[in-house]
Amino acid sequence: MIAIDWGTTSFRAYRLDRKGNVVDTHSSSKGIMVTPPGPRVLEEEIGAWLEEAPIVMSGMVGSRQGWVEAPYVQCPAGYDEIAAALKPVSWGKRKAWIVPGVSCRDAAGVPDVMRGEETQILGCGVDGTICLPGTHSKWVEVRGGRIERFSTAMTGETYAVLKQHSILGRMMEEGAADGEAFAQGVRRSGDEGGLLHHLFGVRTRGLMGELAPAASASYLSGILIGHELRDRADREVLLLGAPALTARYAQAAALLGVGTRTLDADAAVRCLFRLASSRA
Amino acid sequence: MIAIDWGTTSFRAYRLDRKGNVVDTHSSSKGIMVTPPGPRVLEEEIGAWLEEAPIVMSGMVGSRQGWVEAPYVQCPAGYDEIAAALKPVSWGKRKAWIVPGVSCRDAAGVPDVMRGEETQILGCGVDGTICLPGTHSKWVEVRGGRIERFSTAMTGETYAVLKQHSILGRMMEEGAADGEAFAQGVRRSGDEGGLLHHLFGVRTRGLMGELAPAASASYLSGILIGHELRDRADREVLLLGAPALTARYAQAAALLGVGTRTLDADAAVRCLFRLASSRA
Repeated sequence: MIAIDWGTTSFRAYRLDRKGNVVDTHSSSKGIMVTPPGPRVLEEEIGAWLEEAPIVMSGMVGSRQGWVEAPYVQCPAGYDEIAAALKPVSWGKRKAWIVPGVSCRDAAGVPDVMRGEETQILGCGVDGTICLPGTHSKWVEVRGGRIERFSTAMTGETYAVLKQHSILGRMMEEGAADGEAFAQGVRRSGDEGGLLHHLFGVRTRGLMGELAPAASASYLSGILIGHELRDRADREVLLLGAPALTARYAQAAALLGVGTRTLDADAAVRCLFRLASSRA
Repeated sequence: MIAIDWGTTSFRAYRLDRKGNVVDTHSSSKGIMVTPPGPRVLEEEIGAWLEEAPIVMSGMVGSRQGWVEAPYVQCPAGYDEIAAALKPVSWGKRKAWIVPGVSCRDAAGVPDVMRGEETQILGCGVDGTICLPGTHSKWVEVRGGRIERFSTAMTGETYAVLKQHSILGRMMEEGAADGEAFAQGVRRSGDEGGLLHHLFGVRTRGLMGELAPAASASYLSGILIGHELRDRADREVLLLGAPALTARYAQAAALLGVGTRTLDADAAVRCLFRLASSRA
């Protein structure tokens, strides 16, 4: 079978044998925002594999801006609910399945959504509180193998726009990640005044010569990740994502007395294999 | 005398009689980021007035990027402390005074600064908690006519960068300020999950058709201002600023059970007159 993780800015394909072992991989930058997703991209990228079946695709390929919209499955959602909602697409004699995203509502009734992360999470096969840090960090409660509920924090994107477009970025200089400045930011997030006040301190500490220009991006990152963690007081968090980022979250969590374990970031393929098996 | 409010993007001059009454005004866009501040701008803008003396200038003209840096006066700071720290500049036979900014440290020792706002605040001549909403909102405690301490919240700039540069802005349409969506945002700021989670709700509510594209900027504004107000629980807040903005803050405060009064936004001239009198 073929498993595809098709996101906004990247396309990653895995060719699997009958037991689910990866026998070949291929990736490119043809995310859905780069090239309109559809049969032509598949033919160009992995045309030689397409005799295999089934093909299962997850990520933004199933969004409104994707190939075909695969409507969100509501929480609680596990393999069965997601497998039942796989969305078929066909071209010529060929056919593929798109994995739907998952939605829920928080205590106040405000909706939340994920698309792609559900595949990574179910592939891990563990219960607990899972954090997938990133542009839009996901905090996910998994019980009995099902996603019970989750909430998104816009931490990574807020960091990026403040760094690139606000007055805070104007004084920053590129530098290696600064662990001590990051820790100062995490501790700062517990002070009085709230996030909007703590942000301004990135500028004033720089202005007063108390924060080096090359360290201020790490300090800003610590403030934001510190707030994200403090707003979700858990005893143990399972981290799932790129190693550089999960290491930062583990450092911040340790400063706040929260234990962490790091999950296998390549688990998505296992989930796609199991979903594919349901349609084999 | 001549009183000048010389900021980042604007230049405003007032010609006063011996009693402090404004007899003429002149303003232009020659802020310090637009044209390098110095004698030439004064000659070009208000050359005909320059026989008057003294000339007192406040705002970013006294910053490191200004004409001459007027170092910050530390809190607590009233007329006496600020008058004692007026920074003289001269050119040819002429002379002017630059009003210093004010600095303080919060309970955690992190520095904070203002430059220009101190002149507006002292001109009001009232004690209490004064909020000057804006790009960098100032919250100022005034006791016995002196600025005891203050803190800055980066509310307006965070709003602007999220609207212009994040995924939240991509779904927004221009529209009139929407009071009901703004109120929803203010109420939302009290829900669980924290600011970084509430921000993502601007997107998801839009995605689910529960927030109109023309209303989502007002909802975002309500979330941010709601957080700013909740992080500072006061019983009464005195609002000082542009009417459209102070009206928003008054609406948000009322929703949170906080009383407000609006101060005279043109009070800065009174402060500059009194400072000038000390050097007459």
